[in-house]
Amino acid sequence: MLGYLGPAGTFTHQALLTFADDSNAVGYPTVLHALDAVRSGEVEAALVPIENSVEGGVTATLDTLAAGHPLIIRREALLPVRFNLAGRPGTTLADVKRVLSHPHAIAQVREWLAANLPAAAITEGGSTAAAAKEVSDPTSKYDAAVCAAVAQDMYGLAPIVAGIADNPSAVTRFVLISKPTAPPPPTGTDKTTLVAYMRADRPGALLEILEQFSGRGINLCRIESRPTKTGLGNYCFSIDLEGHIREPRVAEAMQGLHRICQDVIFLGSYARADKVAPTVGTGFTEADFSAAKQWYQGLMNPDD
Amino acid sequence: MLGYLGPAGTFTHQALLTFADDSNAVGYPTVLHALDAVRSGEVEAALVPIENSVEGGVTATLDTLAAGHPLIIRREALLPVRFNLAGRPGTTLADVKRVLSHPHAIAQVREWLAANLPAAAITEGGSTAAAAKEVSDPTSKYDAAVCAAVAQDMYGLAPIVAGIADNPSAVTRFVLISKPTAPPPPTGTDKTTLVAYMRADRPGALLEILEQFSGRGINLCRIESRPTKTGLGNYCFSIDLEGHIREPRVAEAMQGLHRICQDVIFLGSYARADKVAPTVGTGFTEADFSAAKQWYQGLMNPDD
Amino acid sequence: MLGYLGPAGTFTHQALLTFADDSNAVGYPTVLHALDAVRSGEVEAALVPIENSVEGGVTATLDTLAAGHPLIIRREALLPVRFNLAGRPGTTLADVKRVLSHPHAIAQVREWLAANLPAAAITEGGSTAAAAKEVSDPTSKYDAAVCAAVAQDMYGLAPIVAGIADNPSAVTRFVLISKPTAPPPPTGTDKTTLVAYMRADRPGALLEILEQFSGRGINLCRIESRPTKTGLGNYCFSIDLEGHIREPRVAEAMQGLHRICQDVIFLGSYARADKVAPTVGTGFTEADFSAAKQWYQGLMNPDD
Amino acid sequence: MLGYLGPAGTFTHQALLTFADDSNAVGYPTVLHALDAVRSGEVEAALVPIENSVEGGVTATLDTLAAGHPLIIRREALLPVRFNLAGRPGTTLADVKRVLSHPHAIAQVREWLAANLPAAAITEGGSTAAAAKEVSDPTSKYDAAVCAAVAQDMYGLAPIVAGIADNPSAVTRFVLISKPTAPPPPTGTDKTTLVAYMRADRPGALLEILEQFSGRGINLCRIESRPTKTGLGNYCFSIDLEGHIREPRVAEAMQGLHRICQDVIFLGSYARADKVAPTVGTGFTEADFSAAKQWYQGLMNPDD
Repeated sequence: MLGYLGPAGTFTHQALLTFADDSNAVGYPTVLHALDAVRSGEVEAALVPIENSVEGGVTATLDTLAAGHPLIIRREALLPVRFNLAGRPGTTLADVKRVLSHPHAIAQVREWLAANLPAAAITEGGSTAAAAKEVSDPTSKYDAAVCAAVAQDMYGLAPIVAGIADNPSAVTRFVLISKPTAPPPPTGTDKTTLVAYMRADRPGALLEILEQFSGRGINLCRIESRPTKTGLGNYCFSIDLEGHIREPRVAEAMQGLHRICQDVIFLGSYARADKVAPTVGTGFTEADFSAAKQWYQGLMNPDD
Repeated sequence: MLGYLGPAGTFTHQALLTFADDSNAVGYPTVLHALDAVRSGEVEAALVPIENSVEGGVTATLDTLAAGHPLIIRREALLPVRFNLAGRPGTTLADVKRVLSHPHAIAQVREWLAANLPAAAITEGGSTAAAAKEVSDPTSKYDAAVCAAVAQDMYGLAPIVAGIADNPSAVTRFVLISKPTAPPPPTGTDKTTLVAYMRADRPGALLEILEQFSGRGINLCRIESRPTKTGLGNYCFSIDLEGHIREPRVAEAMQGLHRICQDVIFLGSYARADKVAPTVGTGFTEADFSAAKQWYQGLMNPDD
Repeated sequence: MLGYLGPAGTFTHQALLTFADDSNAVGYPTVLHALDAVRSGEVEAALVPIENSVEGGVTATLDTLAAGHPLIIRREALLPVRFNLAGRPGTTLADVKRVLSHPHAIAQVREWLAANLPAAAITEGGSTAAAAKEVSDPTSKYDAAVCAAVAQDMYGLAPIVAGIADNPSAVTRFVLISKPTAPPPPTGTDKTTLVAYMRADRPGALLEILEQFSGRGINLCRIESRPTKTGLGNYCFSIDLEGHIREPRVAEAMQGLHRICQDVIFLGSYARADKVAPTVGTGFTEADFSAAKQWYQGLMNPDD
Repeated sequence: MLGYLGPAGTFTHQALLTFADDSNAVGYPTVLHALDAVRSGEVEAALVPIENSVEGGVTATLDTLAAGHPLIIRREALLPVRFNLAGRPGTTLADVKRVLSHPHAIAQVREWLAANLPAAAITEGGSTAAAAKEVSDPTSKYDAAVCAAVAQDMYGLAPIVAGIADNPSAVTRFVLISKPTAPPPPTGTDKTTLVAYMRADRPGALLEILEQFSGRGINLCRIESRPTKTGLGNYCFSIDLEGHIREPRVAEAMQGLHRICQDVIFLGSYARADKVAPTVGTGFTEADFSAAKQWYQGLMNPDD
């Protein structure tokens, strides 16, 4: 059974449908609830958003993955972000005085709202689907919700204006999380996710972390600093890199990181949703690593 | 006249009182509103939160500063984060079924709520002060707000439990923003804030940015990646560094950054609230820069 | 008046003729003598070899430039290395039992001698020209000299075999040295020579030196370690870089070096003999430096 | 049977006596002859000088080791450099008009000669021992040799002045060379010697080489550039590093070097003569490497 950040009608729900049936899927009210359900064994895996091209990392997901019982990313999914302004059938733009939505959604339609509904009161609620549900109540004080089409349809709303995102190319990335298992075999187009805790708040610590990757020709897809919650200026870094932990350049970098960091949390190697292959420079291919190892071993036994 | 992230009773309001009278101060409903008021000249400067030791950067502030008409940080203020669970007088912990607060506040008392009010429904609202106001209404469906003591008092609530933050040492940092002006003179314990946009999404771009600082002995206090909103994996970096733009090591690093970056947004040099002096290593003091310059100029005119 | 590493007939003499008349030129027996003559004012400038593509740096030149009263390189000259086996007229290869030459010359014809005169006794003398002179004496115990054609002709010898260098593309580089003067204006294809003394024998000191250049897009043409004569493992580095000290990227790197090194000896900026123009990457042109400086100055006075 | 850079009476001969009997040892006239004797099997191993604290690397040794059939360093020896001015018995300083010695020896007593024998003619010969032998001939035109005490005694000379080295703390380092064999086990105070050929004459290539070491906490004891003999500006680097090839940080660095370089010549891991133990920083000990490897392997099989 799968879990997801619910309720039914969220973008996460939509993303789940791109690779699985939802007949047995359970929507959880928060990322923390969804991941606790994985940790407790209530569901086998759960889908949660991790990153949005406009709003950045989803901090609840990043922080929950970085602490507590180990979890692992099994796959990722990408979904274009499309928001509608939805109301009870018959509502027109001129009728809209009060809008309800989730803070992240509001952030992504901020300019549209300022230009088209400058006088409306905007209220932040728990999810875009919950906002659609609230608006569907004829006694609600809210006239419209900013939500996904699926939530609008689910709660019998009609689009007042469709496609109101400020950035029409916005994309959200979701990850399917389970308890740790052996990583799936490399596909050639993989990502590895990890969290690195610096050993000390010293100058150059981030530089040393980055050199573990650059020195082995590994590109990063994402790097985000997160406070370690121990004081201003103390960070850990949440990182996605190109490559699979079974590839030797990644294996060596991970071990290098383990040696110089206070802690490294491995969050999985998995196939990229966009199937973009990494550019592996001269000196960093599996063949290069294999040749170097063979050369090294020959030095130990020159008579063979 | 000053603005701040309101309404009256927020932590930002409390922070404002640490260095200014609030008799003429205006509370704005969002960071964007507060900073727009600065840009339009409605207020001379506005105080907004920029960073919390538990929740990380305040993305609305970071993103608003990084785009649009230039703004500058004039000073900073630090405030310990103290949350109370507050209700209408007479309310006991056992009475609390529904709690209202701002998402950031909820995030910081998450563990306390899970342990002490496991069955309560938690609702996210627009601000902790608004939550206190809502709860003060005897007809409200909410029994308690998670808010600052100042908001609790302002709306006639009583503390049900005081000091419920999961991390009692949590601190929030606020910055006072104005239109660009000449930076104040160095005090010896200054910070400089900037945003660096990488020229290309290439491996090593962040490394090159960091080397501009490490190569001149400059420590960073904060580095946060923010999406540039042009696609997953495209970042800019919001950075606080130790030192003042008038110090030569910072001047040279800023110019180096300008040369290698697509864009650099300077957001001010200002006195640190904690008055911590930087450790400037051998080779990086003003005297070292001055001696090097004099030596260089002597090479041009060896006969002098 | 000019000096050179003599006597007449040396490669240095030949190199001198490529850019000056030798009617007033004085040959000195050693590099040290030639450079002392510059220091004392006996000659205005002196030409000495600094580097050979096969044998490496000329340590007497490198060490004399790096210590004592300051000197400066005014120009450079390149000369292909061509050695003849020369003897008294009538001498054939079969007659040659004893060969005389300078150790550097012998090193560069080592393989030819081993293949063609395996039984001959090879003796090292003070210069190739002195060897030619000695062989020209009919009572000499030496049958042949390894020397330049100019020395062979000067002393009435005949070529036994011409062009015997093991590496026919070998080149020697010579530098014209004077007392310090203002560097000539940049030509667009310049080199700068310096010696950097590390502040301490600590790991990473050479790395920091190199980063002063790489961080500003400056290529090195030559880097040689030389002992500082204070113990095994203590080095200074003799460096030629692409660019002129008046170019801003070089000016900044020189000052950076001055700050992190115990000492930096500037040995001149001068036109390259091969007229190869440097590749200056994005961010490192004079225009880039100038734009960065103007931007920086604007930050100080935003109202202008 | 052992070989050494002869003839009997050289410093190399003296160095040999510090660890071996010379009853069966053969002196060869040049480093090349000595190492060819190793390559041909004529001797089992040969002792040659590699580095002098005043004069720098012995280029004949560095270049012969870096090319041709592989050789390996088995041990090292250090010898303080002590030069005497020696003549036939009865010779006084005032009698000395002509001095004979090896160029390296002359270089190390240059200042003494300039101060004490300013008018004497200085001639460079093939070795300090050969100079002593020549001077011992009563018909020689040379009055004195600069040589080691052992050569002076061997040829019946008397010291005119003892201890004339300009730098009384000068040390020469010698290495015992054999055909490749399995490196001896680590002693805890080892050195590893190698030659790295850069893949291309590109900016930053040396930087990348150095980062292979600094990124793994490995200190260098010696780094010397040598021309690759293919043109000015093309170098290889002769390097001594602290540590043994069987130590994991060295093993990983060697393999990293192999991947990024055009060629790497391994010249042995052997006990240091000075028995100085390396400082291995946090993250770079064998235990750190071992813990990182174990952690990595656990990620592959989380259920174990």
